[in-house]
Amino acid sequence: MLEDRSNYTLEDMDRMSVFHPLTSIETHMKQGPMIIEQSKGVRLRDHKGRELIDCGAGLWCVNIGYGRPEIAQAAQQAFENLNYYHIFGGASNEPMIRLADKVLTLFRERSGAPQMARVFFGTSGSDANDTNAKLVRYYNNLRGKPEKKKIISRTGAYHGLTTMAAALTGIDIYHKAWDLDGSGVLHTSCPHFFRFGLPGETEEQFTDRLIGEIEAMIAREGAETIAAFIAEPIMGTGGALLPPKGYFEKLQPILEKNDILFIADEVITGFGRTGDWFATGLYGLKPDIVTLAKGITSAYFPVSASVISQKIWDVLEAASPEYGPVMHGFTYSGHPVGGAVGLANLKIMEEENLPANAAKVGSYLREQLKARFGDHPYIGDIRGQGLMVALEFVADKAKKTFFKAGQNPHRVVAGYAPDNGIMIRGLPFTETLAFSPPLSITEGDLDQAMDALAKSLEQAMPELRKLAAEA
Amino acid sequence: MLEDRSNYTLEDMDRMSVFHPLTSIETHMKQGPMIIEQSKGVRLRDHKGRELIDCGAGLWCVNIGYGRPEIAQAAQQAFENLNYYHIFGGASNEPMIRLADKVLTLFRERSGAPQMARVFFGTSGSDANDTNAKLVRYYNNLRGKPEKKKIISRTGAYHGLTTMAAALTGIDIYHKAWDLDGSGVLHTSCPHFFRFGLPGETEEQFTDRLIGEIEAMIAREGAETIAAFIAEPIMGTGGALLPPKGYFEKLQPILEKNDILFIADEVITGFGRTGDWFATGLYGLKPDIVTLAKGITSAYFPVSASVISQKIWDVLEAASPEYGPVMHGFTYSGHPVGGAVGLANLKIMEEENLPANAAKVGSYLREQLKARFGDHPYIGDIRGQGLMVALEFVADKAKKTFFKAGQNPHRVVAGYAPDNGIMIRGLPFTETLAFSPPLSITEGDLDQAMDALAKSLEQAMPELRKLAAEA
Repeated sequence: MLEDRSNYTLEDMDRMSVFHPLTSIETHMKQGPMIIEQSKGVRLRDHKGRELIDCGAGLWCVNIGYGRPEIAQAAQQAFENLNYYHIFGGASNEPMIRLADKVLTLFRERSGAPQMARVFFGTSGSDANDTNAKLVRYYNNLRGKPEKKKIISRTGAYHGLTTMAAALTGIDIYHKAWDLDGSGVLHTSCPHFFRFGLPGETEEQFTDRLIGEIEAMIAREGAETIAAFIAEPIMGTGGALLPPKGYFEKLQPILEKNDILFIADEVITGFGRTGDWFATGLYGLKPDIVTLAKGITSAYFPVSASVISQKIWDVLEAASPEYGPVMHGFTYSGHPVGGAVGLANLKIMEEENLPANAAKVGSYLREQLKARFGDHPYIGDIRGQGLMVALEFVADKAKKTFFKAGQNPHRVVAGYAPDNGIMIRGLPFTETLAFSPPLSITEGDLDQAMDALAKSLEQAMPELRKLAAEA
Repeated sequence: MLEDRSNYTLEDMDRMSVFHPLTSIETHMKQGPMIIEQSKGVRLRDHKGRELIDCGAGLWCVNIGYGRPEIAQAAQQAFENLNYYHIFGGASNEPMIRLADKVLTLFRERSGAPQMARVFFGTSGSDANDTNAKLVRYYNNLRGKPEKKKIISRTGAYHGLTTMAAALTGIDIYHKAWDLDGSGVLHTSCPHFFRFGLPGETEEQFTDRLIGEIEAMIAREGAETIAAFIAEPIMGTGGALLPPKGYFEKLQPILEKNDILFIADEVITGFGRTGDWFATGLYGLKPDIVTLAKGITSAYFPVSASVISQKIWDVLEAASPEYGPVMHGFTYSGHPVGGAVGLANLKIMEEENLPANAAKVGSYLREQLKARFGDHPYIGDIRGQGLMVALEFVADKAKKTFFKAGQNPHRVVAGYAPDNGIMIRGLPFTETLAFSPPLSITEGDLDQAMDALAKSLEQAMPELRKLAAEA
């Protein structure tokens, strides 16, 4: 007889059964879960009956908004035709082929990146970056450069949380006690001028200093030991950190000169979030590998993609007779339902031109945020691109001093937000609140979200003052 | 303007866009894809119109069979209510809570393992084993044993293909040119008596030799450096390798005595494949961590689970005030549609008692395989448990000599199979064909599959003879 747990509340059942990611066990056991019951458009409803504008689009991922019946219908049809088959050993399925072709075509045309050649599917941004790290090493072994293996990442970077992806991630709190020795991963400085620019340094000087540091790192380690440089074009979890002026323009020739592959992690920036289809086009990047996930299905189904260039594909293809099958992949690589969901999602994005909406309402959002909160004593920077927008907190605006690690003033504000009608996330690297709603959001909804933010800020003021005094 | 690719055939589009996992690029460019168009019950139909009994259940995963409308309905409803929200920071959703509770309750009761305490969700067996490797290290850091970090795996093991999971995997071909330094991973001998038993050695002596090797490894490395032992109770990709008599009974006290965690990788064996609900119950195992995937949703939606014991949870909970949130997780951990699909899948498994059917028809299958192919000159061993069944090829039965690496006689046979009406997979470690159909398969379908196998074997005979002569 199975244990009868039918008398437990859902909240108790959660405490008793679920190991939540990115959650304090201590806090969770006290407070219990916040159970999200329904979602539609840009809004969620929780088990306390609160209606919430989701300023995070989940985790930067529900680009088309919640509850689109077209997606459920596409999934339904895929489930009926072919609910699963693997794509190992040359097996294939139509929705996956069409999604690969669509993603490749879109990426090439919208990013001015005709060099991209093939799509490798997984189920998460983490596994895609893990795949990329494996492929980079494989590529250099195949072309007879077994010493060329290190990967340069950046402080503040987020590239996922498998063991390898977490080693690429450059935020301390994800490493503490996890033993990510990061063998072969180097971290260079975070390109966030507002926070890390030196007193008196111009943005251009800051860029030059960081580029100089990268050149020195390559010289010190030896270019013959460095395989790749991985970068989010705009750092997401780091705090919607825009590259300083000239950063990628100056970086890319150095990578090319030193035969170092460039991996553009577009898990967050891909599929319209920045107001462009891809940040590769926005910044004129020339990646050898691109990481995609989140917006590829707007989170309706777990799909990720590693898009690789012709240069890499040519090496793999030439080595094929000697090396045999490429011995990498996952059971759910190329899932047919994921293919169908991805296609339906991209159809909506194209038909409703959601990247253009992200650009338009994103500009409105930043203007309004600056108008309403630009003079707030504890908000030091309001920045972003499209609907990837952030507010960074400072302890003293005149002196430009920051809060201490662990004070988390932004999370105090986020804590008040649900009772005011919004979900807004505090990020772990800088004291930053992120606005990254569905790309379908309207100016009216954004006004409502900003009213809720204003109220939350007001409620948090006594605590913010106290924290600032101790900072 | 987007490039017009509408005139390409699907086959061409596949070649031009898809980077297939576990596929030879050379072969694929010549042969093109095998496009699976439809699936129902235990049958697939491909683009050449062939109707195929799927002897693999995809990749050991479609336990309830294809095209079940209950699953599509459950997914549809979940898409309508809440198509996604994350479960970070204590956020939660009902389908995921109920799936966690169901999996935990089922596992405890059906396996006699009341020590299992919480469920951590991911999207693949690979990410779940990667999570487990991270958790093992985190656990020992939290309890002040920073030197206790190595993980013992086994030759022939398959634990997935993220960088860390692939390091745990013990099959050479997955490592070649991939640089899986496996830092901190040790491999002990493969427990496959038929292949690796010494001349004159009894099965019990074989077990004792392997257990002795593990004890010597622990003594040599120092128990204070070893964190965990990971094992598939029955090795899947290795070739449906059953543990030799007494193996786990003798292994477990050694692990316990040396404070080494036991990770049972039930990605394949879980959810009825062996004829029991879980192999933990079948073999009386006492795992500290259990890896689940595949059968948890029968592959309709990507879901995996790491189930951890109270002993580990207690350490995590006690450390929570000092360490804060457990900084691990994935965007699609606890996806609500995955939760709903998993629940609907387990309901079907329970209502139709599919584990019992797997036990029953699995016995029939092995009996019939032995009766029909037991005397085949190149089939040396027919083995299995439930519907996890294998035929291992030998070059010379009397002398018990094996084919050479790369000859792949089993793949010659598998190559003839689709034209005879079955999909059957050749495995990469031993020269083994695996039978792992949906658990809903009937004796009649198995008869038909065995007829197709007989025909394929017959067609392959000239090549098998040639290969055997060269072996």
